Amino acid sequence: MPMTELTNLSQVSELAATFPKFDEDAADAAQARQNSLTKPPGALGRLEELAIFLAGWAETDRPAINTAQALVFAGNHGVCAQGVNPFPQEVTAQMVANFDHGGAAINQLCKANGADLSVIALDLDRPTADFTEAPAMSEAECLEALNRGAGAVDDSADILLLGEMGIGNSTTAAALAHAVLGGSAGDWTGAGTGLNAEGVSHKAEVVARAVALHGAAHGMDILAALGGREQAAICGAVLAARAARIPVLLDGYICTAAVAPLFATDPALLDHCLVAHASAEPGHAALCKAMNKEPILRFEMRLGEGSGAALALGVLKSALACHNGMATFAEAGVAGG
Amino acid sequence: MPMTELTNLSQVSELAATFPKFDEDAADAAQARQNSLTKPPGALGRLEELAIFLAGWAETDRPAINTAQALVFAGNHGVCAQGVNPFPQEVTAQMVANFDHGGAAINQLCKANGADLSVIALDLDRPTADFTEAPAMSEAECLEALNRGAGAVDDSADILLLGEMGIGNSTTAAALAHAVLGGSAGDWTGAGTGLNAEGVSHKAEVVARAVALHGAAHGMDILAALGGREQAAICGAVLAARAARIPVLLDGYICTAAVAPLFATDPALLDHCLVAHASAEPGHAALCKAMNKEPILRFEMRLGEGSGAALALGVLKSALACHNGMATFAEAGVAGG
Repeated sequence: MPMTELTNLSQVSELAATFPKFDEDAADAAQARQNSLTKPPGALGRLEELAIFLAGWAETDRPAINTAQALVFAGNHGVCAQGVNPFPQEVTAQMVANFDHGGAAINQLCKANGADLSVIALDLDRPTADFTEAPAMSEAECLEALNRGAGAVDDSADILLLGEMGIGNSTTAAALAHAVLGGSAGDWTGAGTGLNAEGVSHKAEVVARAVALHGAAHGMDILAALGGREQAAICGAVLAARAARIPVLLDGYICTAAVAPLFATDPALLDHCLVAHASAEPGHAALCKAMNKEPILRFEMRLGEGSGAALALGVLKSALACHNGMATFAEAGVAGG
Repeated sequence: MPMTELTNLSQVSELAATFPKFDEDAADAAQARQNSLTKPPGALGRLEELAIFLAGWAETDRPAINTAQALVFAGNHGVCAQGVNPFPQEVTAQMVANFDHGGAAINQLCKANGADLSVIALDLDRPTADFTEAPAMSEAECLEALNRGAGAVDDSADILLLGEMGIGNSTTAAALAHAVLGGSAGDWTGAGTGLNAEGVSHKAEVVARAVALHGAAHGMDILAALGGREQAAICGAVLAARAARIPVLLDGYICTAAVAPLFATDPALLDHCLVAHASAEPGHAALCKAMNKEPILRFEMRLGEGSGAALALGVLKSALACHNGMATFAEAGVAGG
């Protein structure tokens, strides 16, 4: 069912209780099917686990991925005024044009792995405020982006892939992760699109300053204080997907950090989410560990755009091809089942 | 060009000098193309490295995978007399029938990832000798299997996926790895299709005894002494692929151990080989490290059949989709290239 539009950030904390839950019966039936297939039990490792995960969300022991929706949200960030990125801010709009013309990595990866891509540019000419000086977004701005993200979800999709583009948004990600999980700013700050060591050190100092300024924020207020529009849209899409029982492939570091405010609000809000790949950004491993999410792929990628999510979609399809297409021991007349 | 049939195992050591080499110029041109694409340099991580690897073997900066051949070799093993496997030996032939009827994991994974599968059963009613008592194969038997493997390679394929099936062959793999790389038998011995701790301990003792018996063997003689027919066929297919400049995806532990005698003969014989996935078998990590091969995927799989190779094929296709399909900074009008 479609999610009602949010009118207040505090509503999010009440959502988990109303949301559909993982169907343990369907998962058990899928596990029983896995055990009957012509292979030693457990021999397909993570592929078995993924098939069972999809079964629990699809409420059937034989889940299918016929329609995969990929949503890439783009936003601009006031914190770029602090000199945290080697690329100029105009690149966000230029890359959106590149997506629209089919020239980016995510276009090729969606085509190769069978996902329908939509790119949603969120007020690129109106960057968020510089969060070292003020909250990045007002509650109204944050809600607008959340609802746009939620509204973009196709309720009939079998899986949702989420990605992002936004010059400066690895700084935003570091700030969100630092605010939610603590530690030091340096734990969450990496080279992004290609900073040198001096640049990373400056970026960590910017992140530390921002989190100190907004230290009183909790839960979804962290998103308004330190997030960007694309991060808010990602949170909205995650919530809308959950309302429709659609499992989600979060891309890499930026997407995982984007949902950290949901995690801070209620970890159960992310039960339907997988992390697609382990980013080369150094904060990602700790973030995934804190959220108890094991990334599916490890390719030392640090691109964003949903690129890792599209690659992981191919793995999910292979997992379901085995789950649904293999013969059982009984069907094949193989001994030892 | 097709490889001449081998008439003597000692011929293998002379092959490396005659074999085609990685084309550094094509690889450099592919690297230059990667650097011109609309992404931060290196941001596609392993995908960039794989595209460049394929370029070097295809002798072009724009390699393509139009035809992917998957070969699964099956054999039976005399060492099963030592009680090293929980499945009866008849399962090898039953699984070959399952492959032929399209019911196994590898059938689904080849279909999902676009590979043409051929299964070659090698004298299943004539297991190799029990290598705890005698050499597993005579030189003539070993050469016959090598040449059958080589003869099965389609010289027009763009990539070759190798897999295997053979009850008992994780014991064979452990023996090959132990003979080539030393250490203790326990370093290379795992649960295979599902032994308990006692079973693994017995299996390691069997492996230790076998390697002690054939300790004087070197290079390709190790293959005859401790290998099975499917291991020899895999070596033959690797050599024939190299002669035709076809890169190879080795599946997991059994395939990697199968080519250990080639590695012992001359590591350069494996320059065109990738390891598709990191097996759950504990010896695989050390084997890959010794061979300087970093597995592409990590899914805790331990099935064989070429299952990991078929999954990795999807990754290679995605890598080439980006490499060939993305716009350059100049084409897209994006700043910062």
